[in-house]
Amino acid sequence: MARNTGTQTIGATAPATRRSVDEAVAWIDTHVARLGPEEIPASNAAGRVLAGDVAAVADFPPVDRAAIDGLAVRSDETVGASAYNPLAFRVAEAATDLLPGFAVRLNSGDRLPAGADTVIPFDYVQGGAAGHCEIIEPVAPGHEVERIGSHFKAGTTLLSAGRRLGPADIGVLALAGIGRVSVVRRPRIGLVLLGRGLSDPAQNAVPNADGPMLQTLVERDGGIVATERRVARAPDVVREVLAVPGLDGIFIVGGTGRGADDLAARGLADVGEVAIHEVALHPGGSAGLGRTAGGTCVFLLPGRPESCLWAYEVLAGRAIRRLAGRDPALPFRVQTMTTTRKIVSAIGTTEICPIRRLDDDHMEPVTAVARENLLSATQADGFVIVPEASEGVAAGARVAVYLFADRPTPDRPL
Amino acid sequence: MARNTGTQTIGATAPATRRSVDEAVAWIDTHVARLGPEEIPASNAAGRVLAGDVAAVADFPPVDRAAIDGLAVRSDETVGASAYNPLAFRVAEAATDLLPGFAVRLNSGDRLPAGADTVIPFDYVQGGAAGHCEIIEPVAPGHEVERIGSHFKAGTTLLSAGRRLGPADIGVLALAGIGRVSVVRRPRIGLVLLGRGLSDPAQNAVPNADGPMLQTLVERDGGIVATERRVARAPDVVREVLAVPGLDGIFIVGGTGRGADDLAARGLADVGEVAIHEVALHPGGSAGLGRTAGGTCVFLLPGRPESCLWAYEVLAGRAIRRLAGRDPALPFRVQTMTTTRKIVSAIGTTEICPIRRLDDDHMEPVTAVARENLLSATQADGFVIVPEASEGVAAGARVAVYLFADRPTPDRPL
Repeated sequence: MARNTGTQTIGATAPATRRSVDEAVAWIDTHVARLGPEEIPASNAAGRVLAGDVAAVADFPPVDRAAIDGLAVRSDETVGASAYNPLAFRVAEAATDLLPGFAVRLNSGDRLPAGADTVIPFDYVQGGAAGHCEIIEPVAPGHEVERIGSHFKAGTTLLSAGRRLGPADIGVLALAGIGRVSVVRRPRIGLVLLGRGLSDPAQNAVPNADGPMLQTLVERDGGIVATERRVARAPDVVREVLAVPGLDGIFIVGGTGRGADDLAARGLADVGEVAIHEVALHPGGSAGLGRTAGGTCVFLLPGRPESCLWAYEVLAGRAIRRLAGRDPALPFRVQTMTTTRKIVSAIGTTEICPIRRLDDDHMEPVTAVARENLLSATQADGFVIVPEASEGVAAGARVAVYLFADRPTPDRPL
Repeated sequence: MARNTGTQTIGATAPATRRSVDEAVAWIDTHVARLGPEEIPASNAAGRVLAGDVAAVADFPPVDRAAIDGLAVRSDETVGASAYNPLAFRVAEAATDLLPGFAVRLNSGDRLPAGADTVIPFDYVQGGAAGHCEIIEPVAPGHEVERIGSHFKAGTTLLSAGRRLGPADIGVLALAGIGRVSVVRRPRIGLVLLGRGLSDPAQNAVPNADGPMLQTLVERDGGIVATERRVARAPDVVREVLAVPGLDGIFIVGGTGRGADDLAARGLADVGEVAIHEVALHPGGSAGLGRTAGGTCVFLLPGRPESCLWAYEVLAGRAIRRLAGRDPALPFRVQTMTTTRKIVSAIGTTEICPIRRLDDDHMEPVTAVARENLLSATQADGFVIVPEASEGVAAGARVAVYLFADRPTPDRPL
């Protein structure tokens, strides 16, 4: 098929610099770095990434304490105790020091009274009414005693920089009395939807699917959409939105193609640098990336929702995850599976092929036509990335599959 | 070792009904059901579970439209076009109908003008200045035209009941013009921390780690902590907090053991049903469950943070996930791995054994002592559940491992 590459005067609005996905990813990895820290209450830090190591400020437990509910005694006073030789003790309450011949009733976590060196479980005790009991087992020193600092000592690194905080981490911070933590700032993203015919509702406009979808994607990856604007396609409008301060990234959605009103790349070129426009990626090939004169990274995302989705996943999302201090890789589990059908792909383009899982080890691609449709992405169980140099994958081949989620597991007991 | 099971008058405060984890899980599955629906804006529905199927209300696309930026023409007028035989057309703008001898310039997504049956890419076009162009390739009817309803037709089920909504789903809802969706209500949980010596700050109190940790866990599983109270250990206080209306579940934290002030089970028995108190689970064995007279499920969670964590994960969390309409299984990926060291476990108790991952196929258990420590849970990569009937697992055995998260993947290109 003849291709007009020379005198293309209709359509193209900016010199396109089509690059491979690898080149686009390399640009992101070179130019987009983890944001600086901010201090927040530890109880609000779930899901956030630690900006520095967190060390214990004090020993935990802070005192020697009972590991169980029981009686604190001197271990040497229990020597010889048995069911045939019960030893009599008097019972005192937790706050008191231990006197000879006494046992002090403790709840799990109570401080061990002075003079005691062990805690005897109630299972080894008879009686207890009227302040008396009998012990029927000898107990070794230190039994069921949690020593001061046995969980962690002052100065111990509890959680390391770069860790994404989960529920048990939040518990550890509280246990250690750490009220505030320094975490990587959440990337603030400006979303600019380039509308078409905004003054004429009868005209097709950018599908408004992109706004809510990108908001969900950015939040999934640790960012926040700080501003969302829908603006008319005019060069000065693009320049204006690229000048909004206080943002860590800007997405211009729509206007990335070669149509007459595709102003995204031109607008960015006016006020900064278009590093790449057009990526050898399908869907999503009209995407671009660059930065403003101030150094804010800018992604040009196609307006078609399925193209927008994949340009985000492969390119813009990586930048968000890097800014947020997360693993930059796609946030999906990868599993090697057998494809039951051939996967067809064009050489020279990295192709995203949605797949359906057939069983734990087998999958099939959805049809090429269905790929061009956001609904098919929601009906897929995951996708395969066929690299630029590949024509596809033969039926029966083993291939790395990115899985959206694990299957529900009704058969799993827990 | 002699055990005092008969005349136990010291310590135990309520008749315990120790049951297996299986029995506790069966009680949850029988008594805790998905909550009813609520209608919310579709753009806020990410992460929520659909209460019913969602069907398209109209065809999408709503009209025949251009799939690419290009020129709309009559395909029969392009027959015979080639680089050696360029065919001349006049160029009109999108809004106009197509007249013979004309091509209409379209942006991707524009409605196909009346009279056109195909869209020709700019690659097959020369010229274009001054309203004229030459077409150098013939194009088949329907080429790069997206037909009305080709993505989905009115009435098609787009998303099914029970689906947890992800970013692409939010996009599909927006694309289909569905502004509100019916989702499973988020379970509202009341958290009651039974404090010790609240009037005496010098006395040990319930570790306040449990509150923030449980808040994070409940949110992870789709619920919200609607109320959090720290109350003194007194029977009438427990009765009072169990009477708070508008909750879908209540967690009483602390006071679950056999100590003198362990009032949780007694308080629940006073106003409802203690179905199980003490579970053959370690850590977390003093947990209990039941419900109020009004039918609200109640979980008694140990105050020790590591016990609280595991009692939540295995028992209370399952209830939250069921209420929220999610998969009730533990929200971790399970992978079969080889243990390089023996895992020791007591027969008669389901044991949670934190593990460290050594490589993609090998792991080792953390020591038994380290298990009794919340920090060790944060340092683990996952855990093994050794069932009640097992004494443990030999070194070299293959075992199902619950993994907290996938490893960071610096070596993965995407």
